[in-house]
Amino acid sequence: MSTTADRLTELGLTLPPPMVVPAGVRLPFRTVHVVGDVAYIAGHGPQDADGTLSPLRGKVGAQLTLEQAYQAARSTGLSMLASLARELGDLDRIAAWGRVFGMVNAAPGFDRLPEVINGFSDLILDVFGPQVGAHARSAVGQAELPFGLPVEIEGQVHLRR
Amino acid sequence: MSTTADRLTELGLTLPPPMVVPAGVRLPFRTVHVVGDVAYIAGHGPQDADGTLSPLRGKVGAQLTLEQAYQAARSTGLSMLASLARELGDLDRIAAWGRVFGMVNAAPGFDRLPEVINGFSDLILDVFGPQVGAHARSAVGQAELPFGLPVEIEGQVHLRR
Amino acid sequence: MSTTADRLTELGLTLPPPMVVPAGVRLPFRTVHVVGDVAYIAGHGPQDADGTLSPLRGKVGAQLTLEQAYQAARSTGLSMLASLARELGDLDRIAAWGRVFGMVNAAPGFDRLPEVINGFSDLILDVFGPQVGAHARSAVGQAELPFGLPVEIEGQVHLRR
Repeated sequence: MSTTADRLTELGLTLPPPMVVPAGVRLPFRTVHVVGDVAYIAGHGPQDADGTLSPLRGKVGAQLTLEQAYQAARSTGLSMLASLARELGDLDRIAAWGRVFGMVNAAPGFDRLPEVINGFSDLILDVFGPQVGAHARSAVGQAELPFGLPVEIEGQVHLRR
Repeated sequence: MSTTADRLTELGLTLPPPMVVPAGVRLPFRTVHVVGDVAYIAGHGPQDADGTLSPLRGKVGAQLTLEQAYQAARSTGLSMLASLARELGDLDRIAAWGRVFGMVNAAPGFDRLPEVINGFSDLILDVFGPQVGAHARSAVGQAELPFGLPVEIEGQVHLRR
Repeated sequence: MSTTADRLTELGLTLPPPMVVPAGVRLPFRTVHVVGDVAYIAGHGPQDADGTLSPLRGKVGAQLTLEQAYQAARSTGLSMLASLARELGDLDRIAAWGRVFGMVNAAPGFDRLPEVINGFSDLILDVFGPQVGAHARSAVGQAELPFGLPVEIEGQVHLRR
């Protein structure tokens, strides 16, 4: 039995189904792309339990609060874990997190970007622990994100050989 | 004979010459930097056939349409393939695409960013096919890009050992 | 004795102490995270000699000039070298720079982003020389950066085996 799957159960977390792509949009890339022992993780956003993108849209610091954005970053993490689990079969195959790049759809003047992306980092550290879950990170403000999403995060993990 | 070069000919595509750097600007970095079996690709923008940067400048969704930006992303892909071909000698040395990071100079409210960067992904998949050309991707909106370019894309590929 | 440390002395450069994190902010990630022979470098900003973040805040092209931003990018490089030295023990362990991603807190219309990030590239090339210091780079404009910093840079280096 997967230790990571056990840990998700213990934390009461459920991974969402594949993203329901908005009508009329093509996304001709892989959400997780494994090359050798590296898995590149495409930009993910927050999903609802039915697989659709979160209806929370807009700029953090204007339409959305810091707390809502923190939850969106956490939800983005669950979406990413779901993509990884589907591609890898078992999240225990992750030997180490590498790079995390957290992007916030920031209203003018909203610079509390690290506090938003903490929603993602806290989840990863909760699920994988301080050794495997450790990562380098940036948290920055974008002018726009796809579909008006409040948060988009991409990353890179290393797999057990 | 290179399969990838054949495929470019088949598609009627010509790779541009090295970028003509705008007057007065120093760019003290490598457009493609190989370390071991990874090639890091610097941020590229759309070029014209004579090597100069595309004269299409400005914000997508304001000065430029989605369709123009799609073509700019495709042109950015040709610029990147040209840099890779010059550095690697032969594009067949690419074993797998890894990460693609697509940035759009987005007008306020323009969030159709994935549709813009599809111009790049469609080209890569056309040229390399679904196996080698597969990649993980983000498509995001920047506040500004160098020289007012509408699109800038960076990435990472893996080379045959 | 470390060649890189010697070179820093020769250039009259001093590396700053660990960043003094602004009050009330948690940063639950590693500034440098080594996985195998890759070191992922988290987003860094300019620091003062006492470890605090630079008091120069705001948008480049509005509150700050290009020259101030160039110096901020250089200072960001020193902050990054300090993090690398603390994590690696010796900067000579760096076999090659890989990817540099330079982000500028850009005022509307300010697109001289490569000239800002040159402050970083020039430092890295000064310290490591043209062989080890060579890197691929992007220089882009963000809507917002943490704490209103003018520059944030992340990157990736390869270590000697």
